[in-house]
Amino acid sequence: MELISFITIGGTISFAASGALAGIRKELDIFGVTVIAFVTAIGGGTIRDLLLGHFPVKWLTDFQIILLIMVVSVLTVIFRKKIEKLDKTLLFFDTLGLGFFTLKGIEAGLAAELSVLSCLILATITACFGGVIRDIILNEIPALFQKEIYATACIIGGILFFILKRFHLDNQNTQFIVFVVIVLIRFLAIKFNFSLPKIKNSI
Amino acid sequence: MELISFITIGGTISFAASGALAGIRKELDIFGVTVIAFVTAIGGGTIRDLLLGHFPVKWLTDFQIILLIMVVSVLTVIFRKKIEKLDKTLLFFDTLGLGFFTLKGIEAGLAAELSVLSCLILATITACFGGVIRDIILNEIPALFQKEIYATACIIGGILFFILKRFHLDNQNTQFIVFVVIVLIRFLAIKFNFSLPKIKNSI
Amino acid sequence: MELISFITIGGTISFAASGALAGIRKELDIFGVTVIAFVTAIGGGTIRDLLLGHFPVKWLTDFQIILLIMVVSVLTVIFRKKIEKLDKTLLFFDTLGLGFFTLKGIEAGLAAELSVLSCLILATITACFGGVIRDIILNEIPALFQKEIYATACIIGGILFFILKRFHLDNQNTQFIVFVVIVLIRFLAIKFNFSLPKIKNSI
Repeated sequence: MELISFITIGGTISFAASGALAGIRKELDIFGVTVIAFVTAIGGGTIRDLLLGHFPVKWLTDFQIILLIMVVSVLTVIFRKKIEKLDKTLLFFDTLGLGFFTLKGIEAGLAAELSVLSCLILATITACFGGVIRDIILNEIPALFQKEIYATACIIGGILFFILKRFHLDNQNTQFIVFVVIVLIRFLAIKFNFSLPKIKNSI
Repeated sequence: MELISFITIGGTISFAASGALAGIRKELDIFGVTVIAFVTAIGGGTIRDLLLGHFPVKWLTDFQIILLIMVVSVLTVIFRKKIEKLDKTLLFFDTLGLGFFTLKGIEAGLAAELSVLSCLILATITACFGGVIRDIILNEIPALFQKEIYATACIIGGILFFILKRFHLDNQNTQFIVFVVIVLIRFLAIKFNFSLPKIKNSI
Repeated sequence: MELISFITIGGTISFAASGALAGIRKELDIFGVTVIAFVTAIGGGTIRDLLLGHFPVKWLTDFQIILLIMVVSVLTVIFRKKIEKLDKTLLFFDTLGLGFFTLKGIEAGLAAELSVLSCLILATITACFGGVIRDIILNEIPALFQKEIYATACIIGGILFFILKRFHLDNQNTQFIVFVVIVLIRFLAIKFNFSLPKIKNSI
């Protein structure tokens, strides 16, 4: 299996599993849990496709991804106690997914000849907004806007991408370095418990 | 009036009325109630059109549907006490709508040459996701993911559609049988109070 | 600077600032606050573009608007205490934005050869639905559906637009009159504390 397929599949699995677990926590039925697994896994890419006008949106034509998410959702329901203990494995793949989907978002923006800022926005949407839709449906304020270094890792990685490109580094090395940096930032942020400061209304 | 127009109109009316009643329960103003009636009635088809790339989305070019939903919304506000007592009539048309919009979703998927799985997903979205948007706007976890056999009826009907097609049944008979089966499943589920089991986090 | 650019920029600034303030009130981090500023400022136009099929959606190709919103968001965070005291200035620009974006929505509908009703809907969506998305993400029932004369001003202005057009008033004068009427309705509604009646479920 190629490295890229491995990362896409691993990322999709961990996004879907995290969505399914969130649905289980809200005591949804199996249909609801599967929908949440879906929107978490493909929501970011779907918003990107909608904003750019790529139709049909990508996952609709990708039989394997749909099947994969459904299987992950059912397995997560069956083995929910065990999967919750896999926290670190899920986090590992989630973070690989973060790096990979960030690169996909930048690529889509460049292909549409958008500005650097728009590419960074598309990267962040692709990598992070599945979780935003998940939280909106589950009636929570999106965790992405409150906790952890998550979008920040995408954005820093994305800026690095355009700096390296400016210095005419070839595409493959650029992507590799950006990917590694995003993954590192996220792991370090978790290890040392970094997060963006909340804006206190009272100060 | 043709049977199909009768079902579309009946389905749209009952979707809009159920949306309006939900808005009234949250004490929205007349504008808010009308918006909720709208998204409940045309939300599912709109998501389908967006995912497939059909523009402008269908209802925008359908003057009659827009007017119908507005009239239903105003009438529901005026006669809200009486309409709440029409529960069974609304439920009847809602269920016809469920069967009919499921078929519309499958058709749209087939026309876009999508896989069976994607067609089933589009069918479910077309028939059921207006109610999901309604619940998200009204700040509730979507009832579709927690209660009743509703999406399940669509999905079973959709699977039956592809089984009958496999056996080369002609299109008209297939559609008729699928429609009847969806309506039956929903009525039986309500009568005998079936629902999908909730996933208990604690088990 | 032309009058129209002045109004667009003023409207965008006040929409973004109101979004940022709403995010600050929910104690989001700086990333979350910026996202809320974004969806409030460009959400309505984005839904309009999605429904009509204009891709990429307009703001993605508009570097200056993106930068403007980001700057407004950061400034709102830094000077939040002072900006809250600018209530009247913000309200002034917000209302200019309301009038201007209403006209943009009608224009888009006419360009797509849609019915009068659809044009009015697009006008309302363009001018008001950024705030709806903001409220949905922040886990509130949209204020637009409960309080104040806001959408009502758009709708009355929109209807006036088509009446004046019917009387063959030239486009520039029509737009000017409609703009002034929308702004007046909103200011009077605020001054005299008008709002649409809530629909009481109990009556």
